[in-house]
Amino acid sequence: MLLSKIVELIRSGKSGFISSFINDDINIKNVASLQSAKKNEITFLEQNNKLKNHIFETTVSAIIISKKEELIQEIQKRKISFIVVENPRLAFAEILSIFEKKNNLKSGIDSKANVSNAAILGQNCYVGPNVYIGENTIIGNDNYFYPGTIILENVEIGNNNIFCSNSVIHQNTRIYNNCVINSNTVVGSEGFGFIPNEGKWIKMPQTGGVILNNDVEIGTNCCIDRPAVGFTEIGEGTKIDNLVQIGHGVTIGKNCAFAAQVGIAGGAKIGDGVILAGQVGVNNRVKVGNNVIASSKCGIHCDINDGEIISGFPAIKNKLWLKSSSIFKRLPELAKKLRQLDKK
Amino acid sequence: MLLSKIVELIRSGKSGFISSFINDDINIKNVASLQSAKKNEITFLEQNNKLKNHIFETTVSAIIISKKEELIQEIQKRKISFIVVENPRLAFAEILSIFEKKNNLKSGIDSKANVSNAAILGQNCYVGPNVYIGENTIIGNDNYFYPGTIILENVEIGNNNIFCSNSVIHQNTRIYNNCVINSNTVVGSEGFGFIPNEGKWIKMPQTGGVILNNDVEIGTNCCIDRPAVGFTEIGEGTKIDNLVQIGHGVTIGKNCAFAAQVGIAGGAKIGDGVILAGQVGVNNRVKVGNNVIASSKCGIHCDINDGEIISGFPAIKNKLWLKSSSIFKRLPELAKKLRQLDKK
Amino acid sequence: MLLSKIVELIRSGKSGFISSFINDDINIKNVASLQSAKKNEITFLEQNNKLKNHIFETTVSAIIISKKEELIQEIQKRKISFIVVENPRLAFAEILSIFEKKNNLKSGIDSKANVSNAAILGQNCYVGPNVYIGENTIIGNDNYFYPGTIILENVEIGNNNIFCSNSVIHQNTRIYNNCVINSNTVVGSEGFGFIPNEGKWIKMPQTGGVILNNDVEIGTNCCIDRPAVGFTEIGEGTKIDNLVQIGHGVTIGKNCAFAAQVGIAGGAKIGDGVILAGQVGVNNRVKVGNNVIASSKCGIHCDINDGEIISGFPAIKNKLWLKSSSIFKRLPELAKKLRQLDKK
Repeated sequence: MLLSKIVELIRSGKSGFISSFINDDINIKNVASLQSAKKNEITFLEQNNKLKNHIFETTVSAIIISKKEELIQEIQKRKISFIVVENPRLAFAEILSIFEKKNNLKSGIDSKANVSNAAILGQNCYVGPNVYIGENTIIGNDNYFYPGTIILENVEIGNNNIFCSNSVIHQNTRIYNNCVINSNTVVGSEGFGFIPNEGKWIKMPQTGGVILNNDVEIGTNCCIDRPAVGFTEIGEGTKIDNLVQIGHGVTIGKNCAFAAQVGIAGGAKIGDGVILAGQVGVNNRVKVGNNVIASSKCGIHCDINDGEIISGFPAIKNKLWLKSSSIFKRLPELAKKLRQLDKK
Repeated sequence: MLLSKIVELIRSGKSGFISSFINDDINIKNVASLQSAKKNEITFLEQNNKLKNHIFETTVSAIIISKKEELIQEIQKRKISFIVVENPRLAFAEILSIFEKKNNLKSGIDSKANVSNAAILGQNCYVGPNVYIGENTIIGNDNYFYPGTIILENVEIGNNNIFCSNSVIHQNTRIYNNCVINSNTVVGSEGFGFIPNEGKWIKMPQTGGVILNNDVEIGTNCCIDRPAVGFTEIGEGTKIDNLVQIGHGVTIGKNCAFAAQVGIAGGAKIGDGVILAGQVGVNNRVKVGNNVIASSKCGIHCDINDGEIISGFPAIKNKLWLKSSSIFKRLPELAKKLRQLDKK
Repeated sequence: MLLSKIVELIRSGKSGFISSFINDDINIKNVASLQSAKKNEITFLEQNNKLKNHIFETTVSAIIISKKEELIQEIQKRKISFIVVENPRLAFAEILSIFEKKNNLKSGIDSKANVSNAAILGQNCYVGPNVYIGENTIIGNDNYFYPGTIILENVEIGNNNIFCSNSVIHQNTRIYNNCVINSNTVVGSEGFGFIPNEGKWIKMPQTGGVILNNDVEIGTNCCIDRPAVGFTEIGEGTKIDNLVQIGHGVTIGKNCAFAAQVGIAGGAKIGDGVILAGQVGVNNRVKVGNNVIASSKCGIHCDINDGEIISGFPAIKNKLWLKSSSIFKRLPELAKKLRQLDKK
């Protein structure tokens, strides 16, 4: 694709085009990171990026950068073309999505797929080998089922979703549109509901379901459990990384982002725009307000107000945790000082 | 089902029937949570349940409650039928298990299943599409294999077990009766046994097996590893949630309950009735006594006596941990005070 | 196998043969742990092993031990044969690998496998039922694909690798030789790359790949993500336990060992010979030096120098952490003392 064409695309995108300089309107053949990009490739450089020293030696043909004059001068000096935008990462994503080879996208039902006669399948779907689709399951248009996907009975699926290999969707799951379920993830498995009785555990049947609203994406090897009654629900636009546990009856708001190995216990309510870093845990029935940010390994044991930034276990305000943590490593010294004062 | 019939069932169940009041012996059509239950439905309310204010507005037809006079009066005032029991949650589970639609329970061997001629399969089993059952595997009666389950060679399975989709059972696994293996869980995979030698890792072959006793249930995406020699064993009635790691050679007692993302390292010995909350870790070869309770994210690095309640990492008694944690967040203030005293 | 033959094999192995005493050159039929070993079996005993009291009652025929005179005398008194070596565990692994029943090792392509006509498959491979191998995938010799394995498009696989059931290998993955991918593990799934924009998350396409060098072994239910551009790479000889997350663009050196439930966030760089214990987390873009050891549940939030032993969260030197942790549980007492001093 000609560099001038890429400039045009970025100009009409969302990254906040500012200016561009085309040294030579060559054909851009690939997209790469700054340390590995070569001639006929395009890359990007964010403000404060540790990689910036690579601009002195790169042979890349074009760089998407933020408005930082000394960098721009350096790049210009080296006769590299550049595009200045507010958000270089976003421009890079836009270009990458054009270059992404939608290779081998298939359609039709593979002869080795198992689709129940009592299932309804919309138009323009791909159903790969060894995919199973159960009775009374209703599926819309433009869905893509990679080999080995299992969709059990009584599932409702909208349009334009992607199910990666060996994912399992259990009964009573409703998935709206434009969702991605990555490989080996399980949606709608039975919640962990057991009642202690005379030293044993009696099972609470889990008869509910799971709802995934539009634009939800779930990583690999995740578990989204269904509750005893009612629904576990994940709000529109929420993105979930790998190995995440969402317990039965959990409600998650819109546009949240949860990093890998997060665990949300049963009945918790998470607001909109919540960001949970890796290995965070949320206790059962806890309410987490809108736009809360929890740093990695945080353990949220009680309700959290809107907009809080929290850390540690039990979770406290991030700023306090940073201070307390820095004193934690001085505890031996403080204990010694205390002993000395006590002796006086 | 008529409400009077439900009362009868609860009276003969385990939840400790006390009394009942039937305002109108209508047909109960469904079971729901208090906040969503409607006419012709039944729900339950536990003591100290946060949902209790819903009783002032619900249109539900019947409520199972504990013996709390003011609640009962309020419900009676609103002309809602009720059943008073010692354990409302347990009564609810009993009713739910009756209402649970055992929908589409199938039997027979699907034409797209792969069952070895050298395997033995009992009566009344369901073997779904793309299930694999290997050589020398012996399977009892009334087992249910959802689509995509893989049972490898030399496995012994008793009666009345459920294997959910894409679960994998490796060689030398013995599963007794009434167990549930949820989707994408792996039982009997090779333990993580490597010996350091001249800067590299030499593999210790894992030739042992895994034993699951009666009534064991294991969640989704779990890993139960086999050891070098001997067995990893899980005791009767133990229930395990999702994404749990059980290392090679671990022994777990009866009637334990482990929440999601727990990890038990190789060779640990866990007693009977142990409860581990979410994201707890247990070091290798540690012994955990009977009826120990460990709160979430606890790290158990040394042996724990029977009946202890522990928290934190390294694990200490829960009461002490609560006190120390509350002082942790006051550390900046304490350090300041210490500086002041020192200056005097 | 005759005991004298086993002695010969150990003598020519890597465990550091010192001496042997054969009481009776019987046929050794099995390999077992000290507490369960019986006649015609062989076992091993390491220095300081808690099991050593079992030598007073065992009926085992032969023991591999380290050079500890009083143990050797006791064993000799009981007329048990023995082999003295520097590293009994390593000798045991060598013997075990001989006894390991390579049972039912199969070859050929199963009639229920799905191998694309546009894939290339080397010699002497086994491809089990319901295995899927996609277009433009190139596979070398002596590879073993257990039932249900899925290898998607554009994958390159060398020689002598093992893929356990229901593992999924995504496009653009390159796997060299002698690797093991355990059941239900996903390699090459899309990284978690989203850019915040006007309250929503815009997807950064993940067009890169994953490289596994020689002798890499990965446990069950793991996730190895591919990056936006470039490669996620795992170095030769590195061994990874179950439920581990390796984020997009991570680089891992040679001969590392990561225990279960470790999580490495995107872009982190891990050196050679690094040991991470269970449930350790590494922040994105952090650099961890060679031969670093992190104890369980450690949270590595900043760069770590070569050879450090670290613990806690935020990670500090292990020795300091041990001291600070022991004072943590005395915090209530210290706070009280401080109050008393303040009052004086």
